[in-house]
Amino acid sequence: MKIFKLIPILFCFVSFSQNTSGEPSRTKDSIALKKIYDYYLTKSKCYSNLEYLATKIGGRLSGSPQAAQAVIWAKKAMYEAGADTVILQPCMVPHWVRGKKEKCNLSSAKLKINKPLNCVALGNCVGTGTTGVNAQVIEVKSFEELEDLGSVNIKGKIVFYNVFFDQTHVRTGSAYGETVKYRGRGASYAAKFGAVGSIVRSMTSVADDEPHTGNMNYDTTLSKIKIPTLAISYKAADLLSESLKKDNKLQVYIETHCQTLPDEPSFNVVGQITGSEKPNEFIIAGGHLDSWDNGQGAHDDGTGIVQSIEVLTVYKLLGIKPKHSIRAVAFMNEENGLMGGEAYAKFAKEKNEKHISALETDAGGYTPRGFGVDTSYGLYNLVAKWKTLFAPYYVERIEKGGGGADLIALKKLGVPCIGFEPDTQRYFDIHHTAADTFDKVNKRELELGSAAIGALLYLLDKYQ
Amino acid sequence: MKIFKLIPILFCFVSFSQNTSGEPSRTKDSIALKKIYDYYLTKSKCYSNLEYLATKIGGRLSGSPQAAQAVIWAKKAMYEAGADTVILQPCMVPHWVRGKKEKCNLSSAKLKINKPLNCVALGNCVGTGTTGVNAQVIEVKSFEELEDLGSVNIKGKIVFYNVFFDQTHVRTGSAYGETVKYRGRGASYAAKFGAVGSIVRSMTSVADDEPHTGNMNYDTTLSKIKIPTLAISYKAADLLSESLKKDNKLQVYIETHCQTLPDEPSFNVVGQITGSEKPNEFIIAGGHLDSWDNGQGAHDDGTGIVQSIEVLTVYKLLGIKPKHSIRAVAFMNEENGLMGGEAYAKFAKEKNEKHISALETDAGGYTPRGFGVDTSYGLYNLVAKWKTLFAPYYVERIEKGGGGADLIALKKLGVPCIGFEPDTQRYFDIHHTAADTFDKVNKRELELGSAAIGALLYLLDKYQ
Repeated sequence: MKIFKLIPILFCFVSFSQNTSGEPSRTKDSIALKKIYDYYLTKSKCYSNLEYLATKIGGRLSGSPQAAQAVIWAKKAMYEAGADTVILQPCMVPHWVRGKKEKCNLSSAKLKINKPLNCVALGNCVGTGTTGVNAQVIEVKSFEELEDLGSVNIKGKIVFYNVFFDQTHVRTGSAYGETVKYRGRGASYAAKFGAVGSIVRSMTSVADDEPHTGNMNYDTTLSKIKIPTLAISYKAADLLSESLKKDNKLQVYIETHCQTLPDEPSFNVVGQITGSEKPNEFIIAGGHLDSWDNGQGAHDDGTGIVQSIEVLTVYKLLGIKPKHSIRAVAFMNEENGLMGGEAYAKFAKEKNEKHISALETDAGGYTPRGFGVDTSYGLYNLVAKWKTLFAPYYVERIEKGGGGADLIALKKLGVPCIGFEPDTQRYFDIHHTAADTFDKVNKRELELGSAAIGALLYLLDKYQ
Repeated sequence: MKIFKLIPILFCFVSFSQNTSGEPSRTKDSIALKKIYDYYLTKSKCYSNLEYLATKIGGRLSGSPQAAQAVIWAKKAMYEAGADTVILQPCMVPHWVRGKKEKCNLSSAKLKINKPLNCVALGNCVGTGTTGVNAQVIEVKSFEELEDLGSVNIKGKIVFYNVFFDQTHVRTGSAYGETVKYRGRGASYAAKFGAVGSIVRSMTSVADDEPHTGNMNYDTTLSKIKIPTLAISYKAADLLSESLKKDNKLQVYIETHCQTLPDEPSFNVVGQITGSEKPNEFIIAGGHLDSWDNGQGAHDDGTGIVQSIEVLTVYKLLGIKPKHSIRAVAFMNEENGLMGGEAYAKFAKEKNEKHISALETDAGGYTPRGFGVDTSYGLYNLVAKWKTLFAPYYVERIEKGGGGADLIALKKLGVPCIGFEPDTQRYFDIHHTAADTFDKVNKRELELGSAAIGALLYLLDKYQ
């Protein structure tokens, strides 16, 4: 690319300000937003904070020593960002450990195959120990197909949920929404018909060899028997499916060493700048501090954590005190229990803290596209008014309905929620894999997300 | 991230169609666009085409054997995509060769430094041969500063343009637009005051050690003397600048082995589906087939080439013949001469071909954000009407003014032009570097760009 095409489309801040002359405060707001964005794009610590969290602490599943280290780190980082108070909110969290690396092996005498498949046990899975499970495999594309096959076909076998991500969804999260039930309930559904194990095709946008973990739950209404369950990579799923077409008596061996230990005490970390006018009214931005153990938890959700912490810097930068109390919340245990989200809401209720709005950033540190905003208490209408303020920053989609898993309990209390919506195209390439590492995060994309969230909270505080 | 937050924001095609019920053709258009997008996200060959172009042919500077191979490949790929005719338009192109790897070495007895700096000679640069140039260095931040310093301070030295990319521009191309003049004219400007060489800080968004090349021109109105010139990496520029503060007599050694050989015959490759109603009226989409020699030319502009070729598949897919003639154009020599763009316009004029519109895709294969569209002949107003059609695909910015370097000559003939505008955040991380390689391209992002361009050309043909 040469220079020629770029000149006519230079970002023009001045003309933007002039265009909003009908609303006097808009010019002031646009100046504030420019200041906020300039800060985040040149001086923000979110990238170096993320480097520490992802590469020095790394994967930090609830109950692990790394999760405990992350709590200490987050407290320090929040004070450094400008919090006047940092609260550790206690909560008990599940303590599941993977143990020795899991195995999944495909063997067929007929096809002369004896090959390990790239796999990862699903969170909450039981261990088989070294004896493992060896059985024939039956492939299904849906729970309906499983029901139709019934015990007569399934008993004693391993069920393979070979359900593809639908690549035609422009928003990749929609494809995830359609397939994740096989990860979550697939084992118990299979056990209901006597299966001895279950396997899912990884939920991913790319045809590679990375297996994607994620949480599962044993649903005792379906079966009281807990069978081992794991995800295999896209390519391994292709191989298994192709092999089954040629030899439907092939065997798969599953070995897992997972254990569920007693619950552990842990914490949400809540950094606060106390409001100057309404200290008991709260505007919060949060992400989750825990992550899966197999990667560094960089995009999921290290980026959300550092973006939330960076919100606190805005007020020091602008030299103002917020009217409401502003909080950065590092929730614990989003990935396999949501105990942090529950605890936060419980404390909020007990202490009679009025929450004006709650934002979650947990969809990766990619280029911002917009926000999903609850319509309750007029929040959506308020945020939608700021579309022109955000347009120069390419934050364009203000959609109805939003939040995040950590906010479910707050939402039940009536708190209007917001979800930060970055571009989704690359998220499920690395989601819940060993490849969710710091090098996958682009500094500018991360900073633009911090800026969008920081700017939104600035406006929420000013206009509420 | 868990599933909970995703359900309310599922992409809903049906409701979109219902919303456009006031305009009967809109529903048909939205169905056509869905079909086009579904094709590109599941069956498109753009990613495998790019893999071949980038990894099997690789860097393909005008006049090189690789550029000649790329011409043969593009012809074949266009026929495979559905062209009924593929035209090779001859043009003479410059033939500059880098020769043996360039050197840039920093030495200071005072600082006890003797260290090679990561560098790359700029396109069109002269060679020093093995004797090289060794001289003191003077750092400047602008041409104005250079003028102020004058010959008395500059004569016999190497000028170091230490101008940073302005990270506060949300659109990174704006930062490029501000700094690229030091690459383009810096050598002659320095030679005017008696400098013996010039160095530029790489034009980049990231603080890494990759040097970024790009074209320069010796401006004989400034100086008739051609001095060697190269770009050093961001980190090398930091080191040089820091070292100069401590020892302003330090020396830098430059060695280049570049040569400008006689012009070579080459070609634009033009794949056409001839129009059923107006065969001599043309709607074109193009990119440039040549690339810099130091990388694979993946994002610049392999992605634009494969996206343009993929436009041809739309008509076979929909089972229709376009009304106008549709062309995919692989322009030659965008990077260091624009001879392909000139030749295309010359042929169009000679043959009296009426061009309805011309689109260029040359800003990387990233997630689409929108289009820049010329206001002439009502084109902008027409495209702006389709905003709601593109909204479900996150193609949101229809801006005034657009095109690309290859379209400059066509624009002069009065052809209204369009520039495809993908997300810009990562482009200048790898632009014109050895790191512009196939692995930096995300398959879905590339495909979404192909789909946006294919859909736009479908609508342009239908409504013009």
